[in-house]
Amino acid sequence: MQESGFVRTITIEQPSLGNNTSDAQRLEHGLKKELGIGSLNIPLHVLKKLPLSLRAWQFQAKVVLFKTRQSWMVLDIIDPNCDGNVFGVAIDIGTTRIVMALINLESNEQLGEIGFDNPQAAIGPDILSRIHHTSKTGGLEELSSLVIGSVNQHIAQLCDSHGICVEDIYIVTGAGNTAMTHLFLGLDAMEIIKEPYIPCVNIIDNLSARQLDIKINPHGAVFLFPNIGSYFGGDLIAGILYSDLDKKQDPCLMVDVGTNAEIVVGNRDWLIACAGAAGPALEGGVSKMGMTAKPGVIDKVWIDEDSKELNIHTIEEKFPIGICGSGMIDLAASLFLSGRIDIRGKFVKEVCKHHLVDKEGIQHFILVEEKDSGTHDNICLSQVDLNSLTSSKAAMYTILEVIVKNTAGLEFEDLSKFYVAGTFGSFINPVSAISIGMLPDIPIETFEVLGNSSLGGAILLLKDPDAFDRVMHIRQSITYIELNVNQEFMNMFSGAKFYPHTDVSRFPSITNKLS
Amino acid sequence: MQESGFVRTITIEQPSLGNNTSDAQRLEHGLKKELGIGSLNIPLHVLKKLPLSLRAWQFQAKVVLFKTRQSWMVLDIIDPNCDGNVFGVAIDIGTTRIVMALINLESNEQLGEIGFDNPQAAIGPDILSRIHHTSKTGGLEELSSLVIGSVNQHIAQLCDSHGICVEDIYIVTGAGNTAMTHLFLGLDAMEIIKEPYIPCVNIIDNLSARQLDIKINPHGAVFLFPNIGSYFGGDLIAGILYSDLDKKQDPCLMVDVGTNAEIVVGNRDWLIACAGAAGPALEGGVSKMGMTAKPGVIDKVWIDEDSKELNIHTIEEKFPIGICGSGMIDLAASLFLSGRIDIRGKFVKEVCKHHLVDKEGIQHFILVEEKDSGTHDNICLSQVDLNSLTSSKAAMYTILEVIVKNTAGLEFEDLSKFYVAGTFGSFINPVSAISIGMLPDIPIETFEVLGNSSLGGAILLLKDPDAFDRVMHIRQSITYIELNVNQEFMNMFSGAKFYPHTDVSRFPSITNKLS
Repeated sequence: MQESGFVRTITIEQPSLGNNTSDAQRLEHGLKKELGIGSLNIPLHVLKKLPLSLRAWQFQAKVVLFKTRQSWMVLDIIDPNCDGNVFGVAIDIGTTRIVMALINLESNEQLGEIGFDNPQAAIGPDILSRIHHTSKTGGLEELSSLVIGSVNQHIAQLCDSHGICVEDIYIVTGAGNTAMTHLFLGLDAMEIIKEPYIPCVNIIDNLSARQLDIKINPHGAVFLFPNIGSYFGGDLIAGILYSDLDKKQDPCLMVDVGTNAEIVVGNRDWLIACAGAAGPALEGGVSKMGMTAKPGVIDKVWIDEDSKELNIHTIEEKFPIGICGSGMIDLAASLFLSGRIDIRGKFVKEVCKHHLVDKEGIQHFILVEEKDSGTHDNICLSQVDLNSLTSSKAAMYTILEVIVKNTAGLEFEDLSKFYVAGTFGSFINPVSAISIGMLPDIPIETFEVLGNSSLGGAILLLKDPDAFDRVMHIRQSITYIELNVNQEFMNMFSGAKFYPHTDVSRFPSITNKLS
Repeated sequence: MQESGFVRTITIEQPSLGNNTSDAQRLEHGLKKELGIGSLNIPLHVLKKLPLSLRAWQFQAKVVLFKTRQSWMVLDIIDPNCDGNVFGVAIDIGTTRIVMALINLESNEQLGEIGFDNPQAAIGPDILSRIHHTSKTGGLEELSSLVIGSVNQHIAQLCDSHGICVEDIYIVTGAGNTAMTHLFLGLDAMEIIKEPYIPCVNIIDNLSARQLDIKINPHGAVFLFPNIGSYFGGDLIAGILYSDLDKKQDPCLMVDVGTNAEIVVGNRDWLIACAGAAGPALEGGVSKMGMTAKPGVIDKVWIDEDSKELNIHTIEEKFPIGICGSGMIDLAASLFLSGRIDIRGKFVKEVCKHHLVDKEGIQHFILVEEKDSGTHDNICLSQVDLNSLTSSKAAMYTILEVIVKNTAGLEFEDLSKFYVAGTFGSFINPVSAISIGMLPDIPIETFEVLGNSSLGGAILLLKDPDAFDRVMHIRQSITYIELNVNQEFMNMFSGAKFYPHTDVSRFPSITNKLS
């Protein structure tokens, strides 16, 4: 059994005439020594069973602990001779999808993971429509109940499949964007979407599971990652925690492309963040490219070495039915590197040949012909789609440039790591993203895919009490910059709309490939 | 409106694009500035109404606050334009009697007071019998419900008579001895009365009114004064707070004679305490002398200047029915000063004359003859009663001597104040107590009657947030000494069993009176 997490088995000093302080202060003293801390809170339900339990257990106890901003708290005491373990659940509270992991808090082992669509989608697919729904009577409670209900249902399912009781779960950690965090808690989110964009709360003090109607142990605690602001949520703080950005010596960057694109750059001494949603350039932005990943969706595109034709790969290798974001970036890179689109991002008829068709005055590039398609229709990329992708990739590059160069005063080459987080990031091919000038042309080994960093951070917090203080430190030390979309930004953005960029010297590896 | 207590009306910075932190952190920031503090907790129910309320109230709010060991907490926010005030209730949770005061937390004005017998008396008159009752199934819950129920009933009564709602009460502070505190909270008290006398808890973290089923505002908080040990409870800490002992430059002493006799001596630099119940000498001790004060009970006895006969006074001047503690001490003093008892505390037949009768071999002094008595029977003091009083007064003096001289290394003359607290203390005549050698022979103006210091301390805590830290400091800095009943103690005790003492030089004023 590890002795560094939120479950400790301790031996308490036996009372005597010469050592006759109370049982609670005896437990407090033991825990303070064990944890090296100054402050501890013992709730009434623990006091109620303390004298009999300590004596029945020969002054030993398995103590389930958690932290608050101000002190440690005892959640429960358990017979140390009992079989059975103490568990926690980490939740990535995504706008579209919710993912949960079940963790054994004594061995720090992950037992299982479960993902499901956010049931709030029935109310509205995006945050904006959901927040508007809260203006209806009971709308906020409905949204909150939907997500809490589905979380409860899937916690029960996770427990069932691993043969444990929901009462054995004592801690839930959750990370979501600011709006989702509010809707999870049933908090008024209307001001988040109205100028000047004010969340109800940034730092959420620990809540009891009972208070939120989360069906775990009734004395369990719920921690939600704090927000920085309306457009920089707890999911990002969880991501920073997971990537260890706050511990690095050399500057690193993390970009999380989910519903928005959020960027953090920094190291153990400083952290600067900005969120893409602030700029109109990202309207219909990165995340809106392509369709959601599912079987049959094209996720990879590459140029055949010999034929120079475009090859595709689909998820589960089913007949193609569409293209997702990462496939789209691969496709754009392939089109550009093969000369099928020019540096302005326009289709080149002479190179595309019969693949290019005109539909109602708009050029369409046929990637998959109807005979090979799972939809029995051509799978195309229109000039309109491509323009939108061009804007998105330009916006991404410009935001990276603004934060790394203009704000942090670094060059891209100074970054020792470039983490790509989020669902989109899990599949993106950095080589393709560099080829179209979406990501900077730095050594490919600099890039690292983090996967679900929001869930990763939430899991980390269950395992490591020090993470709690790191989270509060990250939140406090981070500088959030509003993206100022002024003339300078627009000039930079214009340059980035070219393939790979008007200033090709920034992309030496691409220049090499093209020549 | 005062602005130093637990209710503050504050103006919060308006949000703007340049100042777009969350409403909660905006409130937190405002309060931290107002209170000069580092840490604050805002509960979910306040977050739920925060955005709409702040905007409806033009970013002003009346904030109801309380403190915990670790931080301040917001209990509620209220429309600052609303009439109506915020109230608190202080409770002296006595073993025999419970007294409550209703305080306006905005003006610090006391509106009313109500006292009632502790309904646990139906289970057992003393702590011991009540704790034994907890070994029965449901016994502990029964005792807790009895006291909570009667507190609720009398809070409602207090509110009714002052035209306020129970929901306007946000804070309850309570002070009781260690056992009563446990029974109030429904905590296992059995170990308190078994060697080595271990309370379940000494420092009780704040509780919610809801958790204890106390019917005030559902978001209200309950604070109980911490204990030092099984025989030194929160009522004493409240007394020290009320007497300002922890602020004095010169050493002072406080003795609280309730169910036990507890003594604290010290100043702002040090505090030493001991409780009388620790010594077998106090068995059947001070508090057991005489009957409870009620109409017809003899509370004063004095020697008629001319006739040298004994005069009496009864409560409400009814026909005498018995004698209470203070009357008993007056009586013993009068008997001794008039030569009716000798220095060994034995009746002197020659002086008592016909007032002394023999019943079954035991001498009885007739204070009131049956014809003048409300009980139509003689009201007597037997040699057995007198021996018991002699033991009690000797025990009291010895304990005072041990703590002041042997432990603190002071002389009684070094004490700048000698506070007498508790129900018994409210009526005791220091002159009489000195005459029998129960209290030391120091200038009469040194003595000060504190009244119900336990209630006084609980009231103070409602009015002054600094008192919270003082309480924790008092608890932490106090040195509790177990009364070591060894040969030395018994020798001192033997000397103190004389009237006023074997060493008469200690009582010059009495020697003067006798000569």
